Amino acid sequence: MTFSQTLFTRAKFPDGKLRNVTMSGGRITAISTGGNDAGDGQEIIDLAGALLLPGFVEGHIHLDTSFYGGKWISHKPCTNGFDVHERVAFQRQNMAIAEPMDVRARKQLELCIAHGATIMRSHVMVDASVGLTSLETILKVREEYRNLIDIQLVAFPQSGILKSPGTADLMDAAIGLGADLVGGLDPASFDRDVEGHLNVVFGIAERRGVGVDIHLHDAGTLGVFTIEQICDRASALGMQGRVAVSHAYGLGDVSADMAKRTAEKLAGSGVSIMTNAPGAHSFPPVVLLRSAGVTVFSGSDNIRDSWWPYGDGDMLSRAMMIGYRSGFYTDEELEAAFDVVTAAGAKALGIEGYGLVEGAKADFVVLEAEHIPHAVVELPKQRSVYKGGKLVARDGNLI
Amino acid sequence: MTFSQTLFTRAKFPDGKLRNVTMSGGRITAISTGGNDAGDGQEIIDLAGALLLPGFVEGHIHLDTSFYGGKWISHKPCTNGFDVHERVAFQRQNMAIAEPMDVRARKQLELCIAHGATIMRSHVMVDASVGLTSLETILKVREEYRNLIDIQLVAFPQSGILKSPGTADLMDAAIGLGADLVGGLDPASFDRDVEGHLNVVFGIAERRGVGVDIHLHDAGTLGVFTIEQICDRASALGMQGRVAVSHAYGLGDVSADMAKRTAEKLAGSGVSIMTNAPGAHSFPPVVLLRSAGVTVFSGSDNIRDSWWPYGDGDMLSRAMMIGYRSGFYTDEELEAAFDVVTAAGAKALGIEGYGLVEGAKADFVVLEAEHIPHAVVELPKQRSVYKGGKLVARDGNLI
Repeated sequence: MTFSQTLFTRAKFPDGKLRNVTMSGGRITAISTGGNDAGDGQEIIDLAGALLLPGFVEGHIHLDTSFYGGKWISHKPCTNGFDVHERVAFQRQNMAIAEPMDVRARKQLELCIAHGATIMRSHVMVDASVGLTSLETILKVREEYRNLIDIQLVAFPQSGILKSPGTADLMDAAIGLGADLVGGLDPASFDRDVEGHLNVVFGIAERRGVGVDIHLHDAGTLGVFTIEQICDRASALGMQGRVAVSHAYGLGDVSADMAKRTAEKLAGSGVSIMTNAPGAHSFPPVVLLRSAGVTVFSGSDNIRDSWWPYGDGDMLSRAMMIGYRSGFYTDEELEAAFDVVTAAGAKALGIEGYGLVEGAKADFVVLEAEHIPHAVVELPKQRSVYKGGKLVARDGNLI
Repeated sequence: MTFSQTLFTRAKFPDGKLRNVTMSGGRITAISTGGNDAGDGQEIIDLAGALLLPGFVEGHIHLDTSFYGGKWISHKPCTNGFDVHERVAFQRQNMAIAEPMDVRARKQLELCIAHGATIMRSHVMVDASVGLTSLETILKVREEYRNLIDIQLVAFPQSGILKSPGTADLMDAAIGLGADLVGGLDPASFDRDVEGHLNVVFGIAERRGVGVDIHLHDAGTLGVFTIEQICDRASALGMQGRVAVSHAYGLGDVSADMAKRTAEKLAGSGVSIMTNAPGAHSFPPVVLLRSAGVTVFSGSDNIRDSWWPYGDGDMLSRAMMIGYRSGFYTDEELEAAFDVVTAAGAKALGIEGYGLVEGAKADFVVLEAEHIPHAVVELPKQRSVYKGGKLVARDGNLI
């Protein structure tokens, strides 16, 4: 039987109140505290007090390079300290022996969806060696999963732009093909030319009318300088709200005073910061940034790939990790960690119609927890995930 | 039907080989690669290639103070920076409104057992305010669970020793009552008298013939100095292998050179180091310590209590956290993280008959994973836990 609308009864909202939620056409059409709103042609799902959360936002992942779910590929350290070029070469070898990319991307996507991600931003490698083939594969997989998750793709110059001839044209072509944003990679340490790199990135973004999301691992003041340059470009081009810096490790290295000044510049130019709360590396100060008005979002980043073996595709456990690494203990702090993987993520990605409000998309995660702080430390694996009002995953498996 | 012995067939050992394991009287009596060793009166369990691991060692927990499984108690920060005295007072308030201690201790124990812990060391608060009542409660609970998990208890002077009149006598009485080790707490920063504090701790330990496990949060060179003093006492009293320093944050603050010198002293005096790989704090360098021959073990420490809201009671996810925080990426490094929560833990706790060898106790965790590195990043929740050859938990629930 097909229903014209769905009604959740006794949904516990994050404020602890039980409400009924009516959905139709993939959107929330009504939220009420009243009695039974049931009518004919309506599917009724009694949530019996389970916690209703907005769908999670996986804001930074690499769908093309994970080995998750396939054969174990042992990590190999770089021969002489960390070297991105050597790592990219190792990745290329691994891609040749791993399962086909579409198979791997599906496994990773299903892992994320089953854990509650309803929105995702994935970087996809575009360079002279792979050309647009990875993007073509991931675009097809995106189409297959279009009813389960909304995916933004970033044309990611993993081998640099100026250092890798032809990449600028490929990135432009990638946008033409369907990528949603222009990526970048360490303009200073990789391409050795901050202005030259940003000229290409923002040139394509301006011409194509798309956003920007730049990988920036550069440490200390070099990282901060690059962030300032990115902010200036975002402001000059009127791209506030459409530019992100991923990782931004430098913000975790500098003094609180310098971090605060940079945070104010980020907030003023509407540039958001993505961190996955790495385990053994400095990372941006989440509270300081949020206090200054910066949108901080998060993602799994690599899941079991050539860069590291970790990752579970669960944005709730990512919220826990953000809290754990940031020293968040109070309810308010745990709620902030949750905000990073939900509403702040949606804001950073420019998502329309997000949240538990009338008119928003009916994307939800339902799980048993007292409230958000409890969910962030308890990490219940039993979850129901709804996309556009339809159940898409339950207890770790796609429907 | 009662069987005189149990046979696991097709158990995948950490080296990847399938073997049969025969158990009787709670011990491993035979390990073979041959065919079917089945005989009469023997229970046969086909593991069908699942990974057989030794039971996990939860080396540092607080059974008396967790709220896990009960009512949510919001964290409250100290009013003016971190203050142990204020925190202890907050804990006292919370204990008054939480469920009874035995109820809470059982919930925490069951969480740990269900995740695979077969050996545990718990600190239990002994001070002028609670006297020996917490210990009496936990001793009873230990007795209830004696067939499911082996528990060592440490008489823990949470309110200091010299600063809290009567505590020295209470700690001595605690050993008489059934506690297995003498604890301690920041001899310098808390009691303001390193020698005086250690005189009491090691005095009781020597007189009673028991081990020592001291909480040491003191930072930098003060922490290192205290470790040196503890090492000297351990050596002088011939207590090598029976003394542990928990947390030892100072080792994570000092130069690699100083850490190395201290590691050599720790190894020489047989003093082990416990770390839970905290999220927002420096912690001991695990590889450096292990390379020097120091036994590094781990524990959940607090699980959802007055000190912080985190913790899941899962020593496999603790191994992941140790690896994540230490930057462990290779198979060898992930195996080292696993060793910390298993064999190294058993060594630190002085456990006889540990491991997957003939004659050892038949304590196991069985789960689906390719090998140990895979298990440490995959963290399968579906597990069977065996204690003394008997199934005690499956898939998160006690049998």
